Amino acid sequence: MSPASLFMIDASHDPALRSWVAGAHTPDTDFPIQNLPLGMFRPAGSSALLRPGVAIGDRVIDLLAAVQAGVLTGAAADALQGTEAGTLNPLMDRGAAGRRALRTALSAALAEGSAAQAALQPCLHALDAVELGLPCRIGDYTDFYTGIHHATTVGQLFRPDNPLLPNYKWVPIGYHGRASSIRASGHAVVRPHGQIKGPNDEVPVYAPTRRLDHELEVGVLIGGGNALGEPIAIEQAEDHFFGLVLLNDWSARDVQAWEYQPLGPFLSKSFASTISPWIVTPEALAPFRAPFGRPAGDPQPLPYLDSAANRAAGHIDLTLEVWLQTAQMRADGLPHERLMASNFTDAYWTLAQLITHHTSNGCDLGSGDLLGSGTLSGPDPKQGGSLLELSLGGKQPLTLANGEQRTFLQDGDSVLLRGHCARPGAVRIGFGACEGRVLPAHQRG
Amino acid sequence: MSPASLFMIDASHDPALRSWVAGAHTPDTDFPIQNLPLGMFRPAGSSALLRPGVAIGDRVIDLLAAVQAGVLTGAAADALQGTEAGTLNPLMDRGAAGRRALRTALSAALAEGSAAQAALQPCLHALDAVELGLPCRIGDYTDFYTGIHHATTVGQLFRPDNPLLPNYKWVPIGYHGRASSIRASGHAVVRPHGQIKGPNDEVPVYAPTRRLDHELEVGVLIGGGNALGEPIAIEQAEDHFFGLVLLNDWSARDVQAWEYQPLGPFLSKSFASTISPWIVTPEALAPFRAPFGRPAGDPQPLPYLDSAANRAAGHIDLTLEVWLQTAQMRADGLPHERLMASNFTDAYWTLAQLITHHTSNGCDLGSGDLLGSGTLSGPDPKQGGSLLELSLGGKQPLTLANGEQRTFLQDGDSVLLRGHCARPGAVRIGFGACEGRVLPAHQRG
Repeated sequence: MSPASLFMIDASHDPALRSWVAGAHTPDTDFPIQNLPLGMFRPAGSSALLRPGVAIGDRVIDLLAAVQAGVLTGAAADALQGTEAGTLNPLMDRGAAGRRALRTALSAALAEGSAAQAALQPCLHALDAVELGLPCRIGDYTDFYTGIHHATTVGQLFRPDNPLLPNYKWVPIGYHGRASSIRASGHAVVRPHGQIKGPNDEVPVYAPTRRLDHELEVGVLIGGGNALGEPIAIEQAEDHFFGLVLLNDWSARDVQAWEYQPLGPFLSKSFASTISPWIVTPEALAPFRAPFGRPAGDPQPLPYLDSAANRAAGHIDLTLEVWLQTAQMRADGLPHERLMASNFTDAYWTLAQLITHHTSNGCDLGSGDLLGSGTLSGPDPKQGGSLLELSLGGKQPLTLANGEQRTFLQDGDSVLLRGHCARPGAVRIGFGACEGRVLPAHQRG
Repeated sequence: MSPASLFMIDASHDPALRSWVAGAHTPDTDFPIQNLPLGMFRPAGSSALLRPGVAIGDRVIDLLAAVQAGVLTGAAADALQGTEAGTLNPLMDRGAAGRRALRTALSAALAEGSAAQAALQPCLHALDAVELGLPCRIGDYTDFYTGIHHATTVGQLFRPDNPLLPNYKWVPIGYHGRASSIRASGHAVVRPHGQIKGPNDEVPVYAPTRRLDHELEVGVLIGGGNALGEPIAIEQAEDHFFGLVLLNDWSARDVQAWEYQPLGPFLSKSFASTISPWIVTPEALAPFRAPFGRPAGDPQPLPYLDSAANRAAGHIDLTLEVWLQTAQMRADGLPHERLMASNFTDAYWTLAQLITHHTSNGCDLGSGDLLGSGTLSGPDPKQGGSLLELSLGGKQPLTLANGEQRTFLQDGDSVLLRGHCARPGAVRIGFGACEGRVLPAHQRG
């Protein structure tokens, strides 16, 4: 991880840069020309293979069509080889080089005055006419626990006498998650059944969860892995960082409380996870890097988790939000209501530290692997990244603007995660939607 | 899971059935004609794509060559479509039907007196001239904790006051494992580094593990998955059971002790797992099914984990063994020495219960997914399936026949898992080797 590459602000970040694509510079767009996130799409309602695309304004560029049209050539075209199979993994295998070649070519072709406008115009589709799938095949999914405010609050609920365990400030705590049940934004979530045993129950029952919750997380996608047995030093960790997505780690709290000891959460999480479909790249995030440090009195990271570049710019200043829309709100034409906001810098460890720690035993990461940040709550109790926190373990319901109350999620509720980076002197970039709606549990015997 | 299909003993199990393949009926072969396990091989030292094969005696049958030779036709040939890509997943997607068609055809073609002998002979390779790879692409790996004797003993070491937690006899406890670092037998294991903090250390260090261990497990491979949101009822669970392998869940106990709370084992396990390369099928295991029941006083499984067929024949009577060869023994020409033996019936839950529980929240399983049993120790302390148990947490070294002692594994040690099924009136079948040798840790700063 060289500071140079993290801070590499080039013409593609110029706030004065504008695109000829209509809608690319409306004040609230997530996808100005400075962003150019990568995803996989197909025409809505079709069952065609997913195709690689880049979002700009309210449009998606069909990248393979742009190659065929002669707009993307050379390294930018080579970078897409293999993605016609329906996944970005071949591009991710190429690490930073392919991704940067694509960005450079697209930034030029989409800029006002580009000679490529006429050829590229037919490669654009309206975002609301396409379906977005998983951007890549996720081989392994690891969920970390870097949200120290979340860990402390939840620790108090599960272990009142022992909220933050002694290892927390030394080890980037994490566990393996379930890769198969990850879906892109828009996929509904069936309320899961599970074994539940209340504090006053003699025996557990198999029943639909009564404490369904969301978790606000950032997902780090890996591009280019390491060989088994070969750790990635922290100086090289960001070479394997392909991009970020938003991640909702849906959780069934009653199932979790009964099952999680001694090996950790399992079926309380594996029924569904939702990610935003657009991968926001390290290049787009370059203007928003932030320093990493430890509060006074906390231990410094062990040497294998420490580097000058990580201290200087290991964090990313990314605002995160959870929004909720109930079935009643939808029926009444009310939009989603914001429940809270926090920031990726609320994480106790940086993404480079997660990559390095994960491989510190020789474990092999591969392109498309997903590392979750863990729930990112802010320091204020109102900044809880889950309902478990916002409702104090279900004891204190939230009251919404329309008077409805929530402790945990009800059938019909839609949870929407949003994220954006902004600072003076840079164009705001966003992550798009990470949304899922709760469907009623199936009837079971 | 119909009792009929579990107990389906047909001509392919006839103890009088013999093959024309030399070596198929030596007294100690793992691979008589009654077994016919499936795997993926290539010529030793080559980098060719893996090819599907079946082991018999000391030979492997090249199945695609057998199709080309006209020996496998119809449903047996169709079942192999797609496996030329280097993995058995396409065959596993077909569930039981393809696998059974293959077995029926091979059993006939390999029997003494078969007219196919001349055509099939050129499709045989010596097992010692081939390299065996992973039989399938493992999408997700879940490790359960069904060894109640292991759970009790280890629980006493980690939580003396609370060895077996209240959920153990109700919930098939499990957690997500790391799929990427699973390798086939014969792949060496580099001693991993990790964060370690001894009871008297003020701060942790990053250093090679000093408590490297093996775990004796059975791996259940899935054939044909379920859709997300659609649990598999226990009556159908064995329809998704494609076969068994042996599994060594290598563990770094010092790393585990420091990292595992509150989310479970992570880097203490993810540096390597080893499986035996031959998938022993439900058809081969049919004569060895055994009843499932609960000791007096233990709770009965909840209804979703209970069925008449599971009670009648949910277990498999499979003897399991751990063997050790030190570098010194190897230098002295001494073979592996047996450390212990246990049985798959020592598991507290059956494989059908694991499949059903895993999907009980709607989690989707896919072909090639691996479910580990957890460490299978017997009821006697000498039957510990790990060195952690056999050495009482490192306090009491084992003394080997040559006088060497072990608490945990030393560099150069080779751990060999073996397994076999035997009973009067049936031909003994075996699982082949699940072996891995410990290499010294890399030098790190």
